[in-house]
Amino acid sequence: MRIDVLTLFPSMFEGVFGASILGKARDKGIVSLNTVNFRDFANNKHNTVDDYPFGGGGGMVLKAEPIFGAVESLTEGSEEVPRVILMCPQGETFTQRKAEELSAERHLIFVCGHYEGYDERIREFLITDELSIGDYVLTGGELPAMAVIDSVVRLLPGVLGNEQSAVTDSFSTGLLEYPQYTRPAQFRDWSIPDVLLSGHHEHIAKWRREQSLLRTLKRRPDLLEHAELTAKEREWLKRQQESSDRS
Amino acid sequence: MRIDVLTLFPSMFEGVFGASILGKARDKGIVSLNTVNFRDFANNKHNTVDDYPFGGGGGMVLKAEPIFGAVESLTEGSEEVPRVILMCPQGETFTQRKAEELSAERHLIFVCGHYEGYDERIREFLITDELSIGDYVLTGGELPAMAVIDSVVRLLPGVLGNEQSAVTDSFSTGLLEYPQYTRPAQFRDWSIPDVLLSGHHEHIAKWRREQSLLRTLKRRPDLLEHAELTAKEREWLKRQQESSDRS
Repeated sequence: MRIDVLTLFPSMFEGVFGASILGKARDKGIVSLNTVNFRDFANNKHNTVDDYPFGGGGGMVLKAEPIFGAVESLTEGSEEVPRVILMCPQGETFTQRKAEELSAERHLIFVCGHYEGYDERIREFLITDELSIGDYVLTGGELPAMAVIDSVVRLLPGVLGNEQSAVTDSFSTGLLEYPQYTRPAQFRDWSIPDVLLSGHHEHIAKWRREQSLLRTLKRRPDLLEHAELTAKEREWLKRQQESSDRS
Repeated sequence: MRIDVLTLFPSMFEGVFGASILGKARDKGIVSLNTVNFRDFANNKHNTVDDYPFGGGGGMVLKAEPIFGAVESLTEGSEEVPRVILMCPQGETFTQRKAEELSAERHLIFVCGHYEGYDERIREFLITDELSIGDYVLTGGELPAMAVIDSVVRLLPGVLGNEQSAVTDSFSTGLLEYPQYTRPAQFRDWSIPDVLLSGHHEHIAKWRREQSLLRTLKRRPDLLEHAELTAKEREWLKRQQESSDRS
């Protein structure tokens, strides 16, 4: 997969693209990660990439020219049609499903701005996807782009070892993880639940499943709607809910 | 404000902490941004920070000792009680409201792991907040921590100029932004809406408000519930909805 990022702050990406899973995926040749400073495509003597909005109002608006120019420089002479992704608060909320969809592409281009607005013609005639990573205000599109890139690249074949793949799979049960413990069994005043030392696999599996259900009930009840639960589990959860309502 | 980040990948933060708003806030002395490699607090000869889970199963679990040791090294001799924030998929979903809450603190410590699990005693006896930035799988807590830090720091007094502050305010209307345009009025085959060149401020304000409502209706109808709308606007939106349902 080829990934290009249009940004005015290429240095933000250096440490992130070089470390951990992204660095390994790049070293293995599974993905190419490249930044483009779109200021290089400003067609004016002061290299400005933003300007005042038509119709008045505060803030600056990112001009269409440098963004079109930068994207076209990346696709020139290529038959491939890339996904051109704008990171912005107005975008579709990014989810794991969207990560899976994007991981099937061959070329992704991310557009990251730091301004109040983008000239609407960028959205209408250049962008294929607008994404938001959540309902909070960030300074620019760079951190959101990194998050999307990380979640997409880790889905590419060969990037994760088997152990790590399992992590992703476990997320797809739709429940939150059960509590985990590792050595020492006694840390300061705090020891681990006895069941985990019992060696009784069935009891351990039952305890973990229940903990997973309870944590999901307590923290993210919205996930339970779509989780794969047995009728018995739904019944059990209902009783837990009732007894916690009473207390 | 003081911010410390516990991570095994300090180099990921260098570019991000040095650029844009975070770099400026640091240069102005409004925030100190510091990374701690918690491997330095592993009390064993191989400097391991993770181990197999009690009770079996795949994946590794982050040990309690190095995390407790690193956090305690940061709070030793201080009267302040920091917020100790774990970035993890099981956490509370991060929102702008949470960013505002955290921006009132004096000391934040972020714990970023790269493993299947954290020893539960870290959660129970050390952590004050567990945060998730969204429902997608990421390799570690580093990118989420950067997003939270960016959204919190930009709320600190003196960090943003007046122009940029307005951006944040506009988000709080609860509606998505209207389309923006800047020069040239004619870019390739695409010209801007005539109303923006009319010079008629009232018409422009009306057009923008309608566009904002329409975009929110189309993309994020969930936001309309809590948005501040007049009765007339609700009526107008209802008609728009009906006419789009018919077509």
